[in-house]
Amino acid sequence: MKNLSPLQVERLKYQPKLPASLLNGINSLNLIEGSATESVRDQEQIKELFKNTYGKPVVTFEAASTKSTSEIRNVGVILSGGQAPGGHNVIAGLYDALKLANPQNKLYGFLGGPSGIIEGQYVEFDDKFIDEYRNTGGFDIIGSGRTKLETQEQFEKSLAVCKKLNISAVVIIGGDDSNTNAALLAEWFVANNADIQVIGCPKTIDGDLKNDQIEISFGFDTATKTYAELIGNIQRDANSAKKYWHFIKIMGRSASHVALEAALQTQPNITLISEEVEQEKMSLDSIITYMSNIIAKRANNGKNFGIAIIPEGLIEFIPEMKTMISNLNDLLSTLEKDSSFANLADAEKFEIISSKLDADNAKVFSSLPTLIKSQLLMDRDPHGNVQVSRIETEKLLIEMIKTRLGEMKKNGEYNGKFSSQAHFFGYEGRCAFPSNFDADYCYSLGYNAFALINNGLTGYLSSVKNLTEPAKSWIAGGIPITMMMNMEKRHGEMKPVIQKALVKLDGPVFKRLKDNREDWAMNDCYKFPGAIQYFGPTEVCDLTTVTLQLEQSKTLVGV
Amino acid sequence: MKNLSPLQVERLKYQPKLPASLLNGINSLNLIEGSATESVRDQEQIKELFKNTYGKPVVTFEAASTKSTSEIRNVGVILSGGQAPGGHNVIAGLYDALKLANPQNKLYGFLGGPSGIIEGQYVEFDDKFIDEYRNTGGFDIIGSGRTKLETQEQFEKSLAVCKKLNISAVVIIGGDDSNTNAALLAEWFVANNADIQVIGCPKTIDGDLKNDQIEISFGFDTATKTYAELIGNIQRDANSAKKYWHFIKIMGRSASHVALEAALQTQPNITLISEEVEQEKMSLDSIITYMSNIIAKRANNGKNFGIAIIPEGLIEFIPEMKTMISNLNDLLSTLEKDSSFANLADAEKFEIISSKLDADNAKVFSSLPTLIKSQLLMDRDPHGNVQVSRIETEKLLIEMIKTRLGEMKKNGEYNGKFSSQAHFFGYEGRCAFPSNFDADYCYSLGYNAFALINNGLTGYLSSVKNLTEPAKSWIAGGIPITMMMNMEKRHGEMKPVIQKALVKLDGPVFKRLKDNREDWAMNDCYKFPGAIQYFGPTEVCDLTTVTLQLEQSKTLVGV
Repeated sequence: MKNLSPLQVERLKYQPKLPASLLNGINSLNLIEGSATESVRDQEQIKELFKNTYGKPVVTFEAASTKSTSEIRNVGVILSGGQAPGGHNVIAGLYDALKLANPQNKLYGFLGGPSGIIEGQYVEFDDKFIDEYRNTGGFDIIGSGRTKLETQEQFEKSLAVCKKLNISAVVIIGGDDSNTNAALLAEWFVANNADIQVIGCPKTIDGDLKNDQIEISFGFDTATKTYAELIGNIQRDANSAKKYWHFIKIMGRSASHVALEAALQTQPNITLISEEVEQEKMSLDSIITYMSNIIAKRANNGKNFGIAIIPEGLIEFIPEMKTMISNLNDLLSTLEKDSSFANLADAEKFEIISSKLDADNAKVFSSLPTLIKSQLLMDRDPHGNVQVSRIETEKLLIEMIKTRLGEMKKNGEYNGKFSSQAHFFGYEGRCAFPSNFDADYCYSLGYNAFALINNGLTGYLSSVKNLTEPAKSWIAGGIPITMMMNMEKRHGEMKPVIQKALVKLDGPVFKRLKDNREDWAMNDCYKFPGAIQYFGPTEVCDLTTVTLQLEQSKTLVGV
Repeated sequence: MKNLSPLQVERLKYQPKLPASLLNGINSLNLIEGSATESVRDQEQIKELFKNTYGKPVVTFEAASTKSTSEIRNVGVILSGGQAPGGHNVIAGLYDALKLANPQNKLYGFLGGPSGIIEGQYVEFDDKFIDEYRNTGGFDIIGSGRTKLETQEQFEKSLAVCKKLNISAVVIIGGDDSNTNAALLAEWFVANNADIQVIGCPKTIDGDLKNDQIEISFGFDTATKTYAELIGNIQRDANSAKKYWHFIKIMGRSASHVALEAALQTQPNITLISEEVEQEKMSLDSIITYMSNIIAKRANNGKNFGIAIIPEGLIEFIPEMKTMISNLNDLLSTLEKDSSFANLADAEKFEIISSKLDADNAKVFSSLPTLIKSQLLMDRDPHGNVQVSRIETEKLLIEMIKTRLGEMKKNGEYNGKFSSQAHFFGYEGRCAFPSNFDADYCYSLGYNAFALINNGLTGYLSSVKNLTEPAKSWIAGGIPITMMMNMEKRHGEMKPVIQKALVKLDGPVFKRLKDNREDWAMNDCYKFPGAIQYFGPTEVCDLTTVTLQLEQSKTLVGV
């Protein structure tokens, strides 16, 4: 215990809340089946690909007054993809339900993500092991990984490992891709008479795994609260010192849910939303104009400070940047075969690139600050593509705005002082101690996953709904994963996938930003959420996100 | 109330704890005087400069059973310098004591720092105004500023403003320089029969305003806890993903107290301490060697991840860098008069600079990555000097380590994969909601400041000691500021100043790092402090820093 912080010591004692339906224990549940389901689109194709697991009903659980017995079951669990606060609690909930059902049940954890089940790397959990991880952040309990579990060979190897351990069910904790793969594995196990069930759990801080069936993915609540804490603190600093514009980039690769939620919690002066940039076909130039105008207007009011929130994925949503980067990827793959190019100084490389890109793209490339041009050349992924996530978008905007404000000053349109600070928040929030909401939600998801297993279901996602109500009113059940699928093109091939949820520009969440942003831009309406609290009044400790409250048409609490 | 977060709503209700001696009320205090004091050094000179305020006794307060009456007093308060959590509570404590002493007393806040008293910009506080700021972070209640209050002309203007408002005492909340200036102003007021008292309060997140009389400056506790939260979260992420080295630069311009405290709370793999670098005359090269060796050894153990903490001021403590930058400042001031130089491309500038710097300095300059060379040329302060605080030291180290590891790989000394993430934390912590410790400490400092005023003292620092004990056992009193002074050279002139406290390399705080760092480097002893808690168990919510506990020879709690 020597390395535990005081908070950790206390959090280990926290007993997560469960939906009332699960409170009577895992062997006292009635399964309520709805009617048969269809996939959201492409029903014929999805049905063809999931012959055995398609069309199953949505299920929910009710507490039963009688107690059934439970056969012995060994279960394996996998953490897949990027960290999200609460993963440890999914495993703790699963473990508690499994041991409650029958103390002879065993829970195995596959190490290092999906590769663990393929390569047979695992641990067996016991009380002591689990107890050290209750209500903690991180995925370090068994590690995670990004191996995609999708080939025939991987499935066969997984089957062999499960058979060796006498495992009759696998729980996969992951995002949209991992849950798609969970459905494929479930179908393959049935088709091959493997007698192994597969259950998924909806994880991602990005918030883009949600739909009519999933209210929120776990981790989004804690991560956004952590970013909002930092943004709020910086806003208070900006409003005290009154000398800096803080440009804050927020993690979330494609969708802007995280940036949007953090903004609704803090009410900064400027918030960019990638989905809007794409739909409105905003050019980099028009974004610079939009931001520079707000900066200039605030300067006119004597305010040479402010806060701008930038979603991590922004660049790829600016049509001209996307086109230029695609052109650049092709060009560089040719140029870099030429060793004389590789040895050139950056300035010379820029000239060659400008001369060889298509005219429009060359113009975009040339307009970028040197730092960004260098980053475009520097960071390539294993496929030779520019790693857009490593481009410092926040500095790109700062540099271009600096130039623009200089021009505006010459024209008498700006009369202020622009000093800036750049920040990027992501790793700070992915492994925070889960909020009470995420601690409860994750524990319930894991507990409920075992209830689905215990009822013989496969190809289902563990589902807990009605999440803006107190935990006792939450509704536990299961969703056939195929129900959330459609066909999309991936790497040139049509594949069955769970649709990624982007920010809906006609939805109530974006509307709140849109309706308020002019006010927030000029009048300082900063909110200071402060650090996540675990022990205090319920309004401080147990509320979930503004996004979910708005989506559920709730009157906003705490906003 | 529409913009208040749930935490803020609850924190407004928090009643800060006071030392038992102050609990009977401001009009029921006995003043206990110690014997006459001397300055820590240069007694003759300090005495000469502070003819009227030198040599006063240390004082403490005792609760009295009788109640005295208090004449009407108007007081002015100033926030000076960088933000630190708790500043609002100093003002709230001062206000409450002042109104308790006599409801007809008035408290004025000077706006925008020391310039407010010079220019006569002020507000008068009332209950409603103060109540909105209780237990909140930031200095936005009246703003702060960096004007130095030190010239005869400024003193005269301040006097005029005070006379106009019938102010008989001024409280200056600031760091070492601001408190030095408080002492000068106190002396000047006495020498000029102004009948205005001056009291200082010890503020700075940097932690370098401490000595035999001051146990800790306010804000250090909250800021370091905020940074430790983030470092802990990133450690958990690193230990889950197992693929990144995170280089985390921590604010704190000259001393490394903040980095050291954050490291003791989190136990990262590498912690650099500027004071050690200077004393051991470590070169940049030897720092790179030290860090690269740990990275290589961890890679040998299969660990291609880790956490390195870097104090913001590091560069200026590396002797060769300090010399080179000084040479560069001189050189650039000449070169930049030549407009043809200004128009050159960076690469050309680098060549000219390398050819004109002294040989040793040219070698250092040439060894730096391009990014850092550019930053050295780019960011200059109003005096034309390189702004060292804007150099991305964390990236400097990453780039040089990358190169070094490449060489080691060629020599068969390294066989790992080095992927890095760079972070800088500073603005995230300066305006956080004050921890219970800072909320209590600051409120007590402010309350006590009025007790000093009420007892007719001037040139004193508000002092609250015995801070590792529960608040009721804290000892309230006052320290003659001259007692903490010595003569130092500033801008070529000998001046009376309060000595800055650097990290003591022979002290118990640094010793704890030194004794453990080999273990922490290789074995992952990460601690996860989590977010600051305000409502939970006292071990989680009320403990102060590891630094203070070690300095007070306490058995560490919560470590």
